[in-house]
Amino acid sequence: MTEALNVAMIGAGRMGRTHAGVLKTVDGVRIRAVVDSVAANAQAVADALGARVQELDAVLDDPSIDAVLVTTPTPTHVDVVCRAARAGKAIFVEKPLADTLAGAERAVRAVEEAGVACQVGFHRRFDPGYQEAKRRIDAGELGRLESFRAVSRDPSPPPLAFLRTSGGLLLDMGIHDFDTARFFFGEVIEVSAIGTVVRDERLREHGLHDLVLAMLRFENGALGTVENALNTAYGYEIVADVLGENGKFHLEKRRRSDLEIWDAGGVHHDYPAHFDDRFREAYEREIVTFARHVRHGLPVAPDARDAMESLRLALAAQRALETGTIVDVTSFGREPA
Amino acid sequence: MTEALNVAMIGAGRMGRTHAGVLKTVDGVRIRAVVDSVAANAQAVADALGARVQELDAVLDDPSIDAVLVTTPTPTHVDVVCRAARAGKAIFVEKPLADTLAGAERAVRAVEEAGVACQVGFHRRFDPGYQEAKRRIDAGELGRLESFRAVSRDPSPPPLAFLRTSGGLLLDMGIHDFDTARFFFGEVIEVSAIGTVVRDERLREHGLHDLVLAMLRFENGALGTVENALNTAYGYEIVADVLGENGKFHLEKRRRSDLEIWDAGGVHHDYPAHFDDRFREAYEREIVTFARHVRHGLPVAPDARDAMESLRLALAAQRALETGTIVDVTSFGREPA
Amino acid sequence: MTEALNVAMIGAGRMGRTHAGVLKTVDGVRIRAVVDSVAANAQAVADALGARVQELDAVLDDPSIDAVLVTTPTPTHVDVVCRAARAGKAIFVEKPLADTLAGAERAVRAVEEAGVACQVGFHRRFDPGYQEAKRRIDAGELGRLESFRAVSRDPSPPPLAFLRTSGGLLLDMGIHDFDTARFFFGEVIEVSAIGTVVRDERLREHGLHDLVLAMLRFENGALGTVENALNTAYGYEIVADVLGENGKFHLEKRRRSDLEIWDAGGVHHDYPAHFDDRFREAYEREIVTFARHVRHGLPVAPDARDAMESLRLALAAQRALETGTIVDVTSFGREPA
Amino acid sequence: MTEALNVAMIGAGRMGRTHAGVLKTVDGVRIRAVVDSVAANAQAVADALGARVQELDAVLDDPSIDAVLVTTPTPTHVDVVCRAARAGKAIFVEKPLADTLAGAERAVRAVEEAGVACQVGFHRRFDPGYQEAKRRIDAGELGRLESFRAVSRDPSPPPLAFLRTSGGLLLDMGIHDFDTARFFFGEVIEVSAIGTVVRDERLREHGLHDLVLAMLRFENGALGTVENALNTAYGYEIVADVLGENGKFHLEKRRRSDLEIWDAGGVHHDYPAHFDDRFREAYEREIVTFARHVRHGLPVAPDARDAMESLRLALAAQRALETGTIVDVTSFGREPA
Repeated sequence: MTEALNVAMIGAGRMGRTHAGVLKTVDGVRIRAVVDSVAANAQAVADALGARVQELDAVLDDPSIDAVLVTTPTPTHVDVVCRAARAGKAIFVEKPLADTLAGAERAVRAVEEAGVACQVGFHRRFDPGYQEAKRRIDAGELGRLESFRAVSRDPSPPPLAFLRTSGGLLLDMGIHDFDTARFFFGEVIEVSAIGTVVRDERLREHGLHDLVLAMLRFENGALGTVENALNTAYGYEIVADVLGENGKFHLEKRRRSDLEIWDAGGVHHDYPAHFDDRFREAYEREIVTFARHVRHGLPVAPDARDAMESLRLALAAQRALETGTIVDVTSFGREPA
Repeated sequence: MTEALNVAMIGAGRMGRTHAGVLKTVDGVRIRAVVDSVAANAQAVADALGARVQELDAVLDDPSIDAVLVTTPTPTHVDVVCRAARAGKAIFVEKPLADTLAGAERAVRAVEEAGVACQVGFHRRFDPGYQEAKRRIDAGELGRLESFRAVSRDPSPPPLAFLRTSGGLLLDMGIHDFDTARFFFGEVIEVSAIGTVVRDERLREHGLHDLVLAMLRFENGALGTVENALNTAYGYEIVADVLGENGKFHLEKRRRSDLEIWDAGGVHHDYPAHFDDRFREAYEREIVTFARHVRHGLPVAPDARDAMESLRLALAAQRALETGTIVDVTSFGREPA
Repeated sequence: MTEALNVAMIGAGRMGRTHAGVLKTVDGVRIRAVVDSVAANAQAVADALGARVQELDAVLDDPSIDAVLVTTPTPTHVDVVCRAARAGKAIFVEKPLADTLAGAERAVRAVEEAGVACQVGFHRRFDPGYQEAKRRIDAGELGRLESFRAVSRDPSPPPLAFLRTSGGLLLDMGIHDFDTARFFFGEVIEVSAIGTVVRDERLREHGLHDLVLAMLRFENGALGTVENALNTAYGYEIVADVLGENGKFHLEKRRRSDLEIWDAGGVHHDYPAHFDDRFREAYEREIVTFARHVRHGLPVAPDARDAMESLRLALAAQRALETGTIVDVTSFGREPA
Repeated sequence: MTEALNVAMIGAGRMGRTHAGVLKTVDGVRIRAVVDSVAANAQAVADALGARVQELDAVLDDPSIDAVLVTTPTPTHVDVVCRAARAGKAIFVEKPLADTLAGAERAVRAVEEAGVACQVGFHRRFDPGYQEAKRRIDAGELGRLESFRAVSRDPSPPPLAFLRTSGGLLLDMGIHDFDTARFFFGEVIEVSAIGTVVRDERLREHGLHDLVLAMLRFENGALGTVENALNTAYGYEIVADVLGENGKFHLEKRRRSDLEIWDAGGVHHDYPAHFDDRFREAYEREIVTFARHVRHGLPVAPDARDAMESLRLALAAQRALETGTIVDVTSFGREPA
């Protein structure tokens, strides 16, 4: 623990740069190498970080590298995670862990066989409000949990090209809400969903939606809803409600700045416009926690197996959306015995 | 219009007394007669109002009575409405208009054949916030409507004896949310629902739930959710959200009093505890509007036909809850052509 | 107490009609007579209330009249109160009790010698939030009281003609804040004040202000501020803060309706526009409480002596404003021993 | 500008470490040297920053040092600023610039004669909400400014030993509010103040207060209040209100986390507990802005002259508090012509 943690960054895109920007300010962490298939990207990021550009193989072979940040495109996650695990590196991988359950299972197996730390990027679990809610839930403050609600609404959609490969709204965005559901309530046993296209008619041709609703039934008897939307006039809205027999926890950031304007039209304030307005601290704490836990040999969470279950739920919801039926989550994607 | 409106009160229970308490303060309205099957109730209410106790037949035969308030138990609504309609009385009837679609159709037919005014007690439509939201929606401020949400949570359940005859949570409580949905978004074409019992296990034996969720698909392409619960630790929670392409209208009363308490534990305020904390003004305006419209010969709303469609939606949701399927609302309860 | 309370209304202006409109809905209260120097006003109000028009002498001589509502112009208050007291009537008189301390003393003497009930119209004391705050303060929840703040801002000024005879902002508007200060904290011993004209330059010629600030030192060691303004773009703002060693009570009505609007410009809601938006319930409870206490022979509050002390404080603040000095409130307006 | 900015830190206490912790994450800024009279402090901070420990003379003689952060105790500010100015260094000095007007004048003269940048640490001017308010005020959105209010309440007092040398509440804490007043409204021409001791009776012996109120009259005709307190049960409360003819800007951070708790006692949320909860971003932006402006040769603000005027106002308020009179700020501390 007295030595620094030497990290390699695999994938020099937006999320990679966000994480690296935090890590470089953490005492005892050094970003040593940057890997990216686009050489110019890799070089620019490496320069800004004072790191070297390297090939993935070289990074994994380098015994001085302790940990890797995997922020490559989703379809490559499983392969990179498996290789990094076999090389004995601690792994931080962006969500989703995989885009199929089979892939997720491969990654889980590789990680567990190698006995390496593998944390998946569900940053909301590190938001101070979510953490305080979790602590209070676990302490029994709400009593028996009864009802869950999560809303994720993006201010504007990503490009159609991205949407076509994203696996759909429930997989790309909803997976955060499903992970939150599991974080607070435990496992979901049944899911149903409906969807529509309210803005961009081109989505229909690709079987995509820009507005989706899902209903959940939890193993503990509670019920819940999830709402996801791609277009929201007023900004970036992330809400979670946890109801129990003793009350409700409501998680929402209501303002971006601390200025309130009063005029003849009433009282006005701004609203978070962007995920960084809402979750800046969560992003920081997630990666700082990863680094600290790895340096101290502590377990990390959510781990690969945990993330696989959030993926299972997202994929089951997608199936429900496509079939108009209630889908059994417990057995979804599992081999019959 | 220069003459007073003479009203008879049919049913001297809680809702009847609430409406009568408002009506007696309205200039130009006189409550003349009280009908109730329990003579002592009728007499006490009549005394407080300065009215006479009378039998229903006598009231309906009395040409000096212009209008009737029907606040008897739900199973009697259809019969009383039909008789009052045939007697040419203007009618205000508490929701639901009927407990079956066949009954509702009978009532609608009687009212329309007689050409009398018949307003059904969906008081939320008269809340100043709901009315302002409706005005702005109709003015196009939100653009195309996309997503609806309604929550009704009661602080504590009615007696089991009442619940057993209430038709279930969706019919007794959810019907207000379904009516609100239709008020803002127009007709619903599909509904699905799930339910559970989180508090009172005795409900299971009677096929009842104390927590129910429903998902809606509207004719205009929008989607929505409804949540109903019978037990809420923090009070009486009624929320409606209307999302459109230009923004969101959020309807919620956040406080009962105007006292905020700041101490070492943070900032605290109270929450509405009872329907009268939330909708006092709506109850007043609904009945005052009825009286004024009848005196001036103006149409009333929501009328019997409108209320029948809210009932259809509630019953379709109940069917969805029982079957675990998506129910087609448009054809629900209609004779095949 | 089984008999009705028979009330005469003296002064058929706005406040008189407001009080009478509430009283007529209270069981056991009858408004029998209306007195107003303008015959047509008196008749119109009497007709609406089902009362008779009468001269003041006749009302005071009529043994069937139990109580009078005095809502005549301020300069007449003392004379009417003294006469009503001598006639043995219970009295509700609008604030201020008088426009001079000498007048107030005369009224107090008359009331106390006659032993009649005399309540002065400081309605804020009857607001549910103010009452709850008072109850908690008296229960010691805040511990030692340390700091007070009151703000009253009107949306737009009354006519200049009224302002010229009003005694100034501190006497007409500030007296409510000074009364609130005393209600919560007890007596004030020192006051200083500054004022200016920010809108209507004509006020200067008359020695008037449309914006005034005052600082208070209480007998119990606490300090406080009062701010009064005549022009407020966003509505009718009434705020009170009570700070003690254990926390703060903040009294403010933040919204008129329960509609929140979210759009590309942020989150918006309305604000009370008029005193009736803020204090409807306080006005109702003040007069209902008066009627009930008189019928039951209970003491009323704030009484004439209490109101005289609020007047003393307002006049001392006005003196401070004029002289630029700290004024000793305790001795203000009293004969030297 | 292509070269890095080399900075020396003079004073390795809390504020120095806060600023340095931000600066070390800014691209193009290097903290090279640390000066502190306590050698162990200096060494610990230097180690954490990767800098060297040095004597002040050596730092000022070192041509490779571009800028100094002066975060030594207040009584030393003037001397250090004058020396750094003469050495041609850009200066960031914590507030207050000086503890006497004579000292402030010396510092201003030294800085202006040397032509170096000198920014004083009024961080609130860099809070995003304050900056947005300022931008809107300057754009005329509020119209003519009419009324100002600022509140600063600390959760708990510093040690008595510190308070005795702090110059009092108005100088140590109030100076931020006075600077805010000037930032938004321009110069103050008159001030009065009252104070008391509500908690720690020992303060009286030292002529100190733990609760102070001040009233301001601005050159532009507006009025204002400032309230400062040393003990606040619910946390760290910083509020500013700017009223103009068109409305109000209200600046307040209402929550620390984004968790709201609803239970049988109502609705609850936390409140900022510490200055870092409220102004983290302001502290970051203030020092980042200083570094960027110095690197680009842009003017800095608030500069030494500006800070001297905030000091003049704070000292005039202190005089008003001591004398019970209205103090003329414009002439305060100036030589008669």
